[in-house]
Amino acid sequence: MATLSSSMAYFDWRHWFRAAVCVAVLTCPLSLQATLALSPEDAETAARGTFREWIEVLGIPNVSTVPADIERNTAWFEQAFQRRGFRTRQLPNNGKPMLFAEAPNAKPSSPTILFYAHLDGQPVNPSEWAQESPWKPVLKRRGSNGLWEPLPIEDLYGTAIDPEWRLFARSSSDDKAPILMLLAAFDALRTKGMDPSVNVKVLLDSEEEVGSPSLDAVIRGNLDLLRCNDLVVLDGPMHRSNRPMLVFGNRGIALATLTVYGPKQELHSGHYGNYVANPAMGLAQLLASMKDENGRVTIAGYYDAVTLDERARRVMAAVPDDEPALRKRFGIAEAEKVGSNYQEAMQYPSLNVRGLKSADVGNQARTIIPDSATAELDLRTVPETSPERLFGLLKAHIEKQGYHLVQGQPTEEERTRYPKLASLKLRGGSSSGMAVRTDLSSPIGEWLRRSLKKTHGADPVEIRMMGGTVPTGAAVGALNVPFAIVPLVNADNSQHSFDENMRLGNYVDGVRSLAGLLTEPLAKP
Amino acid sequence: MATLSSSMAYFDWRHWFRAAVCVAVLTCPLSLQATLALSPEDAETAARGTFREWIEVLGIPNVSTVPADIERNTAWFEQAFQRRGFRTRQLPNNGKPMLFAEAPNAKPSSPTILFYAHLDGQPVNPSEWAQESPWKPVLKRRGSNGLWEPLPIEDLYGTAIDPEWRLFARSSSDDKAPILMLLAAFDALRTKGMDPSVNVKVLLDSEEEVGSPSLDAVIRGNLDLLRCNDLVVLDGPMHRSNRPMLVFGNRGIALATLTVYGPKQELHSGHYGNYVANPAMGLAQLLASMKDENGRVTIAGYYDAVTLDERARRVMAAVPDDEPALRKRFGIAEAEKVGSNYQEAMQYPSLNVRGLKSADVGNQARTIIPDSATAELDLRTVPETSPERLFGLLKAHIEKQGYHLVQGQPTEEERTRYPKLASLKLRGGSSSGMAVRTDLSSPIGEWLRRSLKKTHGADPVEIRMMGGTVPTGAAVGALNVPFAIVPLVNADNSQHSFDENMRLGNYVDGVRSLAGLLTEPLAKP
Repeated sequence: MATLSSSMAYFDWRHWFRAAVCVAVLTCPLSLQATLALSPEDAETAARGTFREWIEVLGIPNVSTVPADIERNTAWFEQAFQRRGFRTRQLPNNGKPMLFAEAPNAKPSSPTILFYAHLDGQPVNPSEWAQESPWKPVLKRRGSNGLWEPLPIEDLYGTAIDPEWRLFARSSSDDKAPILMLLAAFDALRTKGMDPSVNVKVLLDSEEEVGSPSLDAVIRGNLDLLRCNDLVVLDGPMHRSNRPMLVFGNRGIALATLTVYGPKQELHSGHYGNYVANPAMGLAQLLASMKDENGRVTIAGYYDAVTLDERARRVMAAVPDDEPALRKRFGIAEAEKVGSNYQEAMQYPSLNVRGLKSADVGNQARTIIPDSATAELDLRTVPETSPERLFGLLKAHIEKQGYHLVQGQPTEEERTRYPKLASLKLRGGSSSGMAVRTDLSSPIGEWLRRSLKKTHGADPVEIRMMGGTVPTGAAVGALNVPFAIVPLVNADNSQHSFDENMRLGNYVDGVRSLAGLLTEPLAKP
Repeated sequence: MATLSSSMAYFDWRHWFRAAVCVAVLTCPLSLQATLALSPEDAETAARGTFREWIEVLGIPNVSTVPADIERNTAWFEQAFQRRGFRTRQLPNNGKPMLFAEAPNAKPSSPTILFYAHLDGQPVNPSEWAQESPWKPVLKRRGSNGLWEPLPIEDLYGTAIDPEWRLFARSSSDDKAPILMLLAAFDALRTKGMDPSVNVKVLLDSEEEVGSPSLDAVIRGNLDLLRCNDLVVLDGPMHRSNRPMLVFGNRGIALATLTVYGPKQELHSGHYGNYVANPAMGLAQLLASMKDENGRVTIAGYYDAVTLDERARRVMAAVPDDEPALRKRFGIAEAEKVGSNYQEAMQYPSLNVRGLKSADVGNQARTIIPDSATAELDLRTVPETSPERLFGLLKAHIEKQGYHLVQGQPTEEERTRYPKLASLKLRGGSSSGMAVRTDLSSPIGEWLRRSLKKTHGADPVEIRMMGGTVPTGAAVGALNVPFAIVPLVNADNSQHSFDENMRLGNYVDGVRSLAGLLTEPLAKP
């Protein structure tokens, strides 16, 4: 997952519920067959059954930008699904094929779940890694000195594994592990002689780490093949506590470049300061007019479409965010007051100044009135309001402050006519930058919640909508189905960085989560 | 003159009074001897008497940063003054000596005027010049096609010169010409058998073009030598109309760097936008609080000490600025409303944003909440209020907006305690950045005004205080005497650039102005 990590990394539960394997099996009213609450032992057995494959596929480099490597990964995963009886098809994508796989024995009466994951990974700088190569997995345990020490790789295949052991390799967690966990969950079902309660399709993206630029097109080109009732995204890290988690949406992103124009050329600030208006000050005044002291956007109508019902408020309040710790980590004494807590703040569109420039600062600064000043803005969008609507409100607000908006540089005539000149360049609404959200009370939400609670004996943490944008929004948009993200890997996995690793305990827990989920009954809509 | 040019270049007189040589001699009540209203013919004769010296000294490179060249110029000027009976002394200045010269026959009963000019020049890029070398003067006239065409240099020494001819060379105008004009004026007096009405001292700066960093120290080291009643600065261009001009002051300059601090490190704008306050927005709000819509500073007390009496208002209103043309040239539809006209606007301290930066814009922009945002400010100061007082007001204003000011980066503890953190680095009050102003009704003002009117038959244009800062303020500060600037060279002289030139008509007019001035009686205070 490209950007989920920094969102998830901060959750710092004050309460840690130990999962209890228990009576979940007895409490499901919809069951036609019993939900499989896999014992830790059975889950470990299934997991270990996939470790040799895991090691093998981690040996194949998978940097998103190298088509030949992506092809080898796609081919490898195709065979792995075929070994389990899945029907497969490679979906062409500019030399970097994605993989489609469908579980055997689909029942027309059952709903179809499409699982999304990705087989590509971030680039590596091998010299940073504490091992021979990011493509040669190394099993490690933490020594009494707190440092990681290697174990023979054969220990993976022995009679007992320690859940605290970790496998170090690029994509060991992000995002090959969840695919292997899914394969292991199918293996566990076969061992138990059970069929999934749902029809299962799988889509493995090949370019997630570079923003899934073609995901929308590939899906739209294969809509019949990918037809499903719900989408489950297996990506992203959980919190350190490893408490099960569901994410029901993410904000989108749109970009704007705002430039305020001053005199035709830079002017001597002595001779013209107090006479020629300064565009840097003009930009400051314009930006200042967009937000109040509390960080709330003051552009008329900006938050209008957002409503938060009782359930949403309850779910958000139940997220055990440790905000004081968060603020301390970031070195801020106070948070903005957009929402009454962190989760609520993420439910509103944002207006962020991501960059600012006018002339120069530091040693390069000169005593001038600059000729222009530019702010780069990013607007985090929400499903309730389109980027286009927010752009319209922004534009209207700027004009209301007395600005005449020009295309590119102002013309001579515009300079003569309008005292305040600015340009606003907008970029937004790309498929991979979409805001998406599924209702908390949707059937897929209830299904996932129920299943995770049965498997782990505790309510999952639920995120109504996370603040960041993930490219999988493109899949949700193209398929137009309810969705949720189910993160399965340890939060401290160093994804995107060196020494990426996967905790074995999480691998086994993930197999349990997925086995429970596959066997949890879900009514066909 | 380092920075006067851009101030002066814009004056676009609508009315042009031709100088009339006339009855001025008859109208001076203070005369002991008659003021010398030199005829244009006599002035031209005196001017031509100095042209060979002018050509010679323009052949000596004078870039401020090359001590050996400065030494040669100082030595050359020392001899030129000695030839006229001046007592001279080189004033040591880190290998770049300045020159002191004093006219003979000083009378204890007369006041002493110190003339300031500078012998150094701007660097050159010879390839840009339309002549073999900036150090080989070329005489040119404008052809019927509007282009400059060379004339034999001997034409300078012939029987008739055209006032529209120009001599092209580095420092031909800025600032060697005024020194030569002063020598020519002394020659004219001797021809007429007249003595100056005032005692004359001369100081030639050697580092004006690099901001006169040592001028204050050199003066303070030679206070007895330089003791005088008034200072007259011979530097800077006149307006295109060539109407005589007096400048009675200039604003000073002080600098401030304002940084607003955000989170300890850049944060993902999706996951934290709406929760962690953005320092670029904070800076915008802070800057916006400092000025109103009309460009007027809203910091309490900022303009307090400035008062403009009736005479000042009349003098400012009489300056024939063509403000509509000025605004058209700069491409602005409206001016700020700090003063009721351009001249008045320059009488107030300014607060200018000369640079702005937070994270990056353009292709380098990232979707982050920046960790800080910086504005570079310059404050143009006025004599009525010290830089220190303005700094104090600025600081108090920032604190009033809820900011806690830190030294350098905020500490962990400051981050915990204060929601709004900023730093303010102040630099000001350097001697060469001083605001200086002499009262319009001072004796030196009346003396210069009277003399120029006698010589040219029309009131000079008077600038109460120009907006830009000139390093000669250091001389005013160190000597603590009344002063005025008397610009003598043509405005379109391309000073500081390639093809710098001096119009011969201006040279002759300047000799007349100076001869009139030297013989205009002035009471000793």
